Amino acid sequence: MHLFYTPDLAGETSYRLNEQESAHCVRVLRMKEGSEVLLSNGAGSIWRAEIVSASPKACICELKEPIEPYDRRDYTLRIGIAPTKNNARTEWFVEKATELGIDEVSLFRSTHSERTVIKPERLEKVAISALKQSYKAFLPKISPLQPLKSLIDSAREQYRFIACCAGEERVSLKTAYPKGGNVLVLIGPEGDFSEEEVAYAVERGFKPLTLGEARLRTETAALYAVACIQFLNS
Amino acid sequence: MHLFYTPDLAGETSYRLNEQESAHCVRVLRMKEGSEVLLSNGAGSIWRAEIVSASPKACICELKEPIEPYDRRDYTLRIGIAPTKNNARTEWFVEKATELGIDEVSLFRSTHSERTVIKPERLEKVAISALKQSYKAFLPKISPLQPLKSLIDSAREQYRFIACCAGEERVSLKTAYPKGGNVLVLIGPEGDFSEEEVAYAVERGFKPLTLGEARLRTETAALYAVACIQFLNS
Repeated sequence: MHLFYTPDLAGETSYRLNEQESAHCVRVLRMKEGSEVLLSNGAGSIWRAEIVSASPKACICELKEPIEPYDRRDYTLRIGIAPTKNNARTEWFVEKATELGIDEVSLFRSTHSERTVIKPERLEKVAISALKQSYKAFLPKISPLQPLKSLIDSAREQYRFIACCAGEERVSLKTAYPKGGNVLVLIGPEGDFSEEEVAYAVERGFKPLTLGEARLRTETAALYAVACIQFLNS
Repeated sequence: MHLFYTPDLAGETSYRLNEQESAHCVRVLRMKEGSEVLLSNGAGSIWRAEIVSASPKACICELKEPIEPYDRRDYTLRIGIAPTKNNARTEWFVEKATELGIDEVSLFRSTHSERTVIKPERLEKVAISALKQSYKAFLPKISPLQPLKSLIDSAREQYRFIACCAGEERVSLKTAYPKGGNVLVLIGPEGDFSEEEVAYAVERGFKPLTLGEARLRTETAALYAVACIQFLNS
């Protein structure tokens, strides 16, 4: 069944798809009156609906019944990531993390960052596309690029980690993250965090984290952290 | 430090890079006599070496000392995967799985396969590039497309799973895979395995596997399986 992203869906009994989605629904997918669709508002509400007017400019859906989202969680998972030089790698991370389940991606700038400009809008589109593909009720938030220190200063999760390639006393998720905990993991740029950045985070309650022996690219490390946390919560 | 892939490196005291790698080393990376490099043969041997003749057509390296590979494992991990319609998604899987660590990718054709032709050579190049990037001593094997049933018939791993979207009595990796076990996980095409295919595998000792609630694309499911197994072995 096809899912449409309908961010302004609240408590209506019918919903009009916007012009772009209407055209897609009627012209591309060739849906007719009576076709069943799903509508997700990205904020936890997902409905079974039926097309009652298959207009290619303003397609009207009648809401039938709400569905219990399979992606409701009792913990939050956020990744802080330094955008990669090649944008496609960051986009790829957002797509895959959305599929596996993530609440927020916080982009940051740090000493060794290779990219200091990035458009969150493009990443939001990638996340919306993954939400549709994987029938999610919850759309991850993509927060705009900010300095690493402001991200560290404002973090409120109970479990806060900074993944780094060296240093003593690094913990692993296996022992330091308990199922159900609200968690933030910071993943550095390809040149890693500076020692000063790690020290700054540690002073503010972050634990230095190892993700194992393998040398991983930024986006791979970030996705591996998401996978491990989802696996621990499964 | 830069790593070169040198598949025919055996027990020599010096090694001549091929013409392409020599040009890359001398013209692109601008390395000179005295520069340190790493040489990996993809079969477990990785050496520290020094350039002694920086010829752009036949660059000679003198082998200094072997390095203990960080990616040696006491178990084998193989993924059987139905190639995705979009080749880039299968290539992406191979890149990321090589980074996280995998021994073999076995491509197969099944009832709902969307792609029945694929060149393993292209995937091998992706794996070699990931090996260099992540300083691996072991290059995963990419075995050519074969019918699913022949892959099932010839599988010898002690832990054999077939990931499927529905069905009772599916096990999870958490409870059914013990650290250190040789493992094969089959990941179906976007249209999933047919019931008959699952039954065929189960009769031959495969366990039906769930990877959780999330609806994952083929390549995401495959990478998630790799991540979970590496995490369980960490």
